[in-house]
Amino acid sequence: MIVLGIDPGFTVTGYSIVSKIKGKEVIIDAGYISLPATQSLQVRIGIFHDFFCEKIKIHNITDLSIETPFLGKNVQSFLKLGYLRGVLYLLANQHKLVLREYSPREVKLAITGSGSAQKDQVARVLGMMFPHLAKPKKEDVTDAIAIGLCGLWQKTLL
Amino acid sequence: MIVLGIDPGFTVTGYSIVSKIKGKEVIIDAGYISLPATQSLQVRIGIFHDFFCEKIKIHNITDLSIETPFLGKNVQSFLKLGYLRGVLYLLANQHKLVLREYSPREVKLAITGSGSAQKDQVARVLGMMFPHLAKPKKEDVTDAIAIGLCGLWQKTLL
Repeated sequence: MIVLGIDPGFTVTGYSIVSKIKGKEVIIDAGYISLPATQSLQVRIGIFHDFFCEKIKIHNITDLSIETPFLGKNVQSFLKLGYLRGVLYLLANQHKLVLREYSPREVKLAITGSGSAQKDQVARVLGMMFPHLAKPKKEDVTDAIAIGLCGLWQKTLL
Repeated sequence: MIVLGIDPGFTVTGYSIVSKIKGKEVIIDAGYISLPATQSLQVRIGIFHDFFCEKIKIHNITDLSIETPFLGKNVQSFLKLGYLRGVLYLLANQHKLVLREYSPREVKLAITGSGSAQKDQVARVLGMMFPHLAKPKKEDVTDAIAIGLCGLWQKTLL
């Protein structure tokens, strides 16, 4: 079981690739991708697709874990977020990945034991779990690691 | 210029393939696809992708024309519509299609001369333009033909 965890967004998409080796969680890869705002929407979506298609093939991903969105103030952002999620659903279908979704609350609960935990609490737990992990440059990467671990632990929707 | 016009939806997606031959608009293909509600979201998105990928290749599509959505009562439907639109953006990128979007108002305006026209007025104009066209079984097909023609006429966004 090799899980690709994704926190999708046009400005920054955080991702993690996590697995278990000898019963212990390991982070195989983690980082982020920024889509160039100067490019057309279809070019940006193409870049997003190709980036994760490569990751899936290189790392023999078996499971995909993504965060469920909530409707914020900006309806257009919400719709556009759907574009990226649609691409992820398509990749899950094309590469026969098991797809799971988690709400922000479920992710916090799984990692810290509290659904109302703050972001820095999540980061602190991950820092204890992976003491050799450099502090991620972006919050989105921390989120993506947490989402990937949820998939690895196969926590079901509450 | 061979335009694929699409009115995307999970229950029914209407499509049309239109072009100009000797200065006259022709409908090369028109119909609809229903995604099986019993299948998972990723399977349905895969079916949607493969269906239009085939159409694009078989008919040498050069342009893609889709309707811009508006936020209805159901936020989840709106987000899911984004999934299908994301797949269409990806196909536009992968097959180097020129992508144009039209609001329902622009489509009505282009076809009938009035942005506030009713659906039956649009259908009546199309019936006059294409007297040999059998009445489409679904309203979504009529919409898709209208959207395809907008792309063919290259009306820009208002």
